[in-house]
Amino acid sequence: MADRDARRSLSQLLRVEPGSRIDLDRFDAQRTHGWKREDAELHQAEQEARLTELQERLWAEGKRSLLIVLQGIDAAGKDGTIRKVMDAFNPQGCTVTGFKVPSSEELRHDYLWRIHHHTPGKGSVAIFNRSHYEDVLIVRVHGLVPRDVWRRRYRQINDWERLLTEEGTVIRKFFLYIDRDEQRERLQARIDDPNKRWKFSASDLPEREKWDSYRKAFEDMLEKTSTKDAPWYLIPANRKWFRNLAVSTVLAETLTAMDPRYPPADPGIEDIVIPR
Amino acid sequence: MADRDARRSLSQLLRVEPGSRIDLDRFDAQRTHGWKREDAELHQAEQEARLTELQERLWAEGKRSLLIVLQGIDAAGKDGTIRKVMDAFNPQGCTVTGFKVPSSEELRHDYLWRIHHHTPGKGSVAIFNRSHYEDVLIVRVHGLVPRDVWRRRYRQINDWERLLTEEGTVIRKFFLYIDRDEQRERLQARIDDPNKRWKFSASDLPEREKWDSYRKAFEDMLEKTSTKDAPWYLIPANRKWFRNLAVSTVLAETLTAMDPRYPPADPGIEDIVIPR
Repeated sequence: MADRDARRSLSQLLRVEPGSRIDLDRFDAQRTHGWKREDAELHQAEQEARLTELQERLWAEGKRSLLIVLQGIDAAGKDGTIRKVMDAFNPQGCTVTGFKVPSSEELRHDYLWRIHHHTPGKGSVAIFNRSHYEDVLIVRVHGLVPRDVWRRRYRQINDWERLLTEEGTVIRKFFLYIDRDEQRERLQARIDDPNKRWKFSASDLPEREKWDSYRKAFEDMLEKTSTKDAPWYLIPANRKWFRNLAVSTVLAETLTAMDPRYPPADPGIEDIVIPR
Repeated sequence: MADRDARRSLSQLLRVEPGSRIDLDRFDAQRTHGWKREDAELHQAEQEARLTELQERLWAEGKRSLLIVLQGIDAAGKDGTIRKVMDAFNPQGCTVTGFKVPSSEELRHDYLWRIHHHTPGKGSVAIFNRSHYEDVLIVRVHGLVPRDVWRRRYRQINDWERLLTEEGTVIRKFFLYIDRDEQRERLQARIDDPNKRWKFSASDLPEREKWDSYRKAFEDMLEKTSTKDAPWYLIPANRKWFRNLAVSTVLAETLTAMDPRYPPADPGIEDIVIPR
C-alpha cells in the first residue's frame, strides 16, 4: 500500500468534504490507511525535505502565506506535531502561536481580534496551537456564552477565513483525533512519569468527563467549517508516526500546489562582476 | 424648523438606507435641513453634554463599544469633526486612530488586519480617521489592486462589520461631503495662510483632478456598505457648524438608544461603613 499512489491520495482520504457528516464514535483513531511504520518514517523524511525547500520558496516569493491550525482533545499530540513540522521549517518565516485562556484585554474584544493579529504575513507560515475554534469548543462545552452566540460563530469563522483566503492566505486545519482509551493511557503516562508530570493539569480529568460534549462540538465544527478553501483534515492520531506522516504529507502537497517561485532577478544582474 | 421633532429626525434624514441609490452630483453640500447657525450651536452644546454622560455610562457598563468611522475627500473636515466630538468624550475610554499609507509590515497582511487591531474594546469608543474604506477608495481610484480584488471587498467589509456588531460593537459611519467649489476654497486657504500651509500636500492637486473617479467610488461605497447595523450617514459638510451638529446628534441618538447602564453595586454595599 505504501506506494506513491497511496501516498499521493492521503490528503484526499483525510480531508473532510464540505457537507459530509462526521461520526467520531465510529472513527478509527488507530487507522493508518495501509501504511507501515518503517515506510512511513522514510516517507516522512522525504516530506520534510520537500517542506524545507517549499517554505524557502514561499518566503522568497513573498506574496502568499500559509496558516496551519491544529486542534485536538487534550493529549491528542498538538505539541508533538508542531515540533515535528517545525523541524522542517526555517524559524525565520514561521511563527507558532498557542492560544490559551484569553487575557482580560483580549476578552474586551471580539474573539477573532487576538487571532487575526497572529495571522501570517505574506511569505510566512503561521502555526496555531489551538485557535479561534476554541470559541466553538471549550466555550460551547462550558456554556461560557449563550447558545445563539456560539452557533453564529460557524458562519462568522467561515466569513473571516474566506477573507484571509481571498487576500492570499492558504489555510489548512488539522483535527488530531485520539480515542478515549488512548487519551487515558497518555494522561496516565503523564502522571506516572516524573518528567512528564508537569504536563498534567488538574483540569484534565473533569475535561475528560465531558468527552461526549466535546465529541459533539468537534463533529459540529468539522461539519460546519470545513470549506473548499479552508478544509479540515481529520487525522487518526493514536499512532504518532502516522499522525506526523499525515500532517507532513498534506502540508507538502499544499505547498506543492501553491508552487511558490523565487522572484526573478533584476534584468542585467547576471552580467554584474563584483569588483576586487 | 429647529424644534425638537426636526432635531429628532436628523439621523433619519441623513442615514443612507440600504438599497438606496446615491448621486453626489445632485447632493447639496450646503444643505442644513432648516437649521440656523445660532440654534444649531445651542443644540450642539446640548448634544455634547449628552455624549459626555452617555460615554461615561458606556465605560462604566463595560459590555459594549462604539466604533465611529469618518471618511471624506481631502479638506472635508475629518480632523475638525474629531476635535469637536472628542471634546465631549473622556479620553480614557476613547481612542482615535488615523489610517495613513500602510507600512510594509501592514501590507504583508490582509487590509483588515491593521484595522481590526484598533477596534474598540468593551466599554470604549474608537474613532477612525479614514479606515478600511480607503481600500475601496484610494486603492480603487489609483488602481492599486485589480478590479476583482476591490470589488469583493464590499462583501468582505460587510461580513467583518457584521462580526463586530454581533460581538457587541455598534458602528456608525460618517461620510463628510463638500462640493468641488468648497474644496477649492479650503485648499486655497491652506496655501494662502502660512499657519495652515503645512496641511497642504503636493498630492492634493492631482487628487482633486480625480474628483469624478472618487465621486463614483464614494457612491459605490455608500450604496454597497450601508447596512442596517452599520449605516453610513451622508453629511452635507460645507457648513462646519451643521456638520458638527449632524455628527453629534447622530452619536447622541445612537448612545441614547444603546442606553448603557451603570452596573449594579454588589448587594449589601450600601450598608458598609468605612471604619475610622
